Amino acid sequence: MSVKPVIVVAGLGVGGGTGGATARAFAKEGYSVALIARNADSLKAFEKELKETGADVVSFPIASYAASDVLSAFTKIRAHFAKPSYVIRAAVYNAGYGVWKPFLQITPEDVKATSEGNLEGPFAFSREALLDFTENPIDSSSGAKGVLIFTGATASLRGNVTTSAFAAGKHALRGLSQSLAKEFGKQNIHVAHAIIDGVIFTPRTNEKFGNAEWAKNEDARLNADSIAAAYLYLAKQDRSSWTWELDLRPAHEKW
Amino acid sequence: MSVKPVIVVAGLGVGGGTGGATARAFAKEGYSVALIARNADSLKAFEKELKETGADVVSFPIASYAASDVLSAFTKIRAHFAKPSYVIRAAVYNAGYGVWKPFLQITPEDVKATSEGNLEGPFAFSREALLDFTENPIDSSSGAKGVLIFTGATASLRGNVTTSAFAAGKHALRGLSQSLAKEFGKQNIHVAHAIIDGVIFTPRTNEKFGNAEWAKNEDARLNADSIAAAYLYLAKQDRSSWTWELDLRPAHEKW
Amino acid sequence: MSVKPVIVVAGLGVGGGTGGATARAFAKEGYSVALIARNADSLKAFEKELKETGADVVSFPIASYAASDVLSAFTKIRAHFAKPSYVIRAAVYNAGYGVWKPFLQITPEDVKATSEGNLEGPFAFSREALLDFTENPIDSSSGAKGVLIFTGATASLRGNVTTSAFAAGKHALRGLSQSLAKEFGKQNIHVAHAIIDGVIFTPRTNEKFGNAEWAKNEDARLNADSIAAAYLYLAKQDRSSWTWELDLRPAHEKW
Amino acid sequence: MSVKPVIVVAGLGVGGGTGGATARAFAKEGYSVALIARNADSLKAFEKELKETGADVVSFPIASYAASDVLSAFTKIRAHFAKPSYVIRAAVYNAGYGVWKPFLQITPEDVKATSEGNLEGPFAFSREALLDFTENPIDSSSGAKGVLIFTGATASLRGNVTTSAFAAGKHALRGLSQSLAKEFGKQNIHVAHAIIDGVIFTPRTNEKFGNAEWAKNEDARLNADSIAAAYLYLAKQDRSSWTWELDLRPAHEKW
Repeated sequence: MSVKPVIVVAGLGVGGGTGGATARAFAKEGYSVALIARNADSLKAFEKELKETGADVVSFPIASYAASDVLSAFTKIRAHFAKPSYVIRAAVYNAGYGVWKPFLQITPEDVKATSEGNLEGPFAFSREALLDFTENPIDSSSGAKGVLIFTGATASLRGNVTTSAFAAGKHALRGLSQSLAKEFGKQNIHVAHAIIDGVIFTPRTNEKFGNAEWAKNEDARLNADSIAAAYLYLAKQDRSSWTWELDLRPAHEKW
Repeated sequence: MSVKPVIVVAGLGVGGGTGGATARAFAKEGYSVALIARNADSLKAFEKELKETGADVVSFPIASYAASDVLSAFTKIRAHFAKPSYVIRAAVYNAGYGVWKPFLQITPEDVKATSEGNLEGPFAFSREALLDFTENPIDSSSGAKGVLIFTGATASLRGNVTTSAFAAGKHALRGLSQSLAKEFGKQNIHVAHAIIDGVIFTPRTNEKFGNAEWAKNEDARLNADSIAAAYLYLAKQDRSSWTWELDLRPAHEKW
Repeated sequence: MSVKPVIVVAGLGVGGGTGGATARAFAKEGYSVALIARNADSLKAFEKELKETGADVVSFPIASYAASDVLSAFTKIRAHFAKPSYVIRAAVYNAGYGVWKPFLQITPEDVKATSEGNLEGPFAFSREALLDFTENPIDSSSGAKGVLIFTGATASLRGNVTTSAFAAGKHALRGLSQSLAKEFGKQNIHVAHAIIDGVIFTPRTNEKFGNAEWAKNEDARLNADSIAAAYLYLAKQDRSSWTWELDLRPAHEKW
Repeated sequence: MSVKPVIVVAGLGVGGGTGGATARAFAKEGYSVALIARNADSLKAFEKELKETGADVVSFPIASYAASDVLSAFTKIRAHFAKPSYVIRAAVYNAGYGVWKPFLQITPEDVKATSEGNLEGPFAFSREALLDFTENPIDSSSGAKGVLIFTGATASLRGNVTTSAFAAGKHALRGLSQSLAKEFGKQNIHVAHAIIDGVIFTPRTNEKFGNAEWAKNEDARLNADSIAAAYLYLAKQDRSSWTWELDLRPAHEKW
């Protein structure tokens, strides 16, 4: 009996974005999938949808990205996908808190959510993933004990007029990811960070930007499946040539 | 009767570092000084020391850099240095939380302190300073309504093996400062960020690194008074040529 | 009869590095290969080696990366792989001039070679590739008319003690590549830049660093085939999610 | 009789910009001034203008920034401001070649000028300045044997749609300056790089942008005298806290 690799994905939005596409892409590669997200309803709906494609998937709703909630989700994941049948091999932190406001309109709640989603949450998520990874055998193909991927944004690199909270959070995540890449690369754990630059096409963004034209233009919007393909590529890179950071944007994006 | 400019300095350590030197340098330029720090004893001691040089200085100890504590300190500062006799013209956020540990040894308390010192604290501090600045008249010499300076570090730009918490916090601060520089520059408020790269000579660092040799080598250690001189230069830059970011390091520093 | 895609690769070293591996990887994917390099002997040897694997490959030795030599090579390439049977779809600039010396030992010849290999050469190479690309139809899979990839290094991002010439050259290449990515993305041409961070295992580097131990350690050296796999991944990315820059380094690399 | 410090400034434009203002500012501080520039007429005119303020200044026209021309200028400077009465203490490379064009319109002449102005020129200029600096005694105030300052631009950090040549050149200059800062800091030579972000008000830019409104708005244009003040501040920084890089932009600049 062979050991099944598990991917833990945190952050799903309404299932049409990066987190959902990543779950689908890794499921297709034979990973069992553990989903963590705050919106229990859309989480369940997406779990159901993914199961219908034959995927081995379970979802774990959490109230917040506070450390205790993240830890509790991992405890359940470990119980559900238990060793030695399963082993966590990949973890994608796709959550966070995005708020775009003039600085003086940012509320204490915004700051707290930024801190939870972009600092406390990813620290707890990384800790639990890394604790599992360090005990894994090295995969003969990638040379990795595990791969930990963070979803960043343009604001990871540059602050801008309405991004004081978002940029602070995304910068923090980038600093964490680079530190972890350097510390855990030596232990054959691959840590990567993707700069997503542009608007991802999802039913939600399509509605929000109210622009069917835009939605149809393949050169102008990010496709979540393509981002997921990049994450899969990162997970497959062999140990001689690991990427910490890459950017992903539509062909016609102005940047 | 002329209006007295006030500088608010947050973060003093034991008085021998950047915060203390900044207070001294601005006091010498005619600023009244409001000090915020956590260590009430060394805060009082430093206040006393500075007063003996003739400076107009008051200190406001806080329990933490939680938003409510920072707000409460500003409320007291505004009561003490009240308009129209005084006007807050400069604010330096020199606090933060520095922890250097292998990632798996970082505690929930470390993460909380990182978040408070590098996200929640500077958001609250910036908010209060900016609320005052936006009401100020433009200074005829610098063209600024106020100047807000953040103390960064090498870890603001690069994560490293034991800096997961420190780099996350310092990255966050940098993202905040760049966003604010872009948003408030247009309102004639100057926001700057200094990358301090190296060890500052203080009685504490001298003891910690146990190295009188090092302490005597002017080419190898940062001098807090020189950092303060840089902050003063930033505060005096005229509106045609404002600096958002500069780095400061000893001549012989390896980087 | 279908149109054959051609890749032009400039810079081969002695065939064991990135350029050679890229040629092999793209040949395996069905590309015809045009090789440009200065060392005619090793170029011929590598052409022969690649032909024996069944690849459709021709080599074009040049005297230097002066613009006229690069243009002349492209003219021959266009004559050999002539439309409408062939169309240039990919171009990889893997040449350059690497010199690591204390600054005051750098000679006028070093500066000239740096300028030719890292400025004049890539400008001419990019021009010829882009002139062809702009006339191509859009590929239905990648959404690109062509892909232009530059090989960078750590010195693309940071200067260091003995890298004044190398860093100047690699920085220039990076500035060019980012400008081109922004200008030609809008025309469905994908421009990418890879930061190669570490020592690539080749017979030459193995000998140079005289370290069979190191050569056998998969975690410590870059594998040219893995770099080539990254370039192939870049060429296949679909237009919704193109990468301008990624870094590639061994798992155990200190950085 | 005391030794007179000399500043060498390369690149003047028509005298109203950074180079000219730097010459004036350092002259006022007691430096003798050696000017290098291509436009002999405006060079002479500016020399005359500066002399009338009582400055000790001589100008050295050059045909190009080819290494031989730069060397020849330094030879004349050394003959004119001869030791032991004079010693070169500061050098500012403010030249370069700026061309903003769609990439396919860039000519071989543009590439050559970019290479000369941003690679060959600054390498030769740095070499000559550093050769003198290394023989200087350490200045007791700054702790430096000399200071070498490069004028950069936004394009030093980012390529953009019409900046392929300009960004390549400015990136090269930045890579050189950082390498030199690291290599020569250890020898008590201060190397700095200023990112000038925005349009400098000069009679020429005022005419070019045809906008008296803009010219009068202190918040919207760089003032060359303020840039020069920054260069003077850099030259005066003491060895405990040297800046390699700072940015300078108008308060209202969008960036």
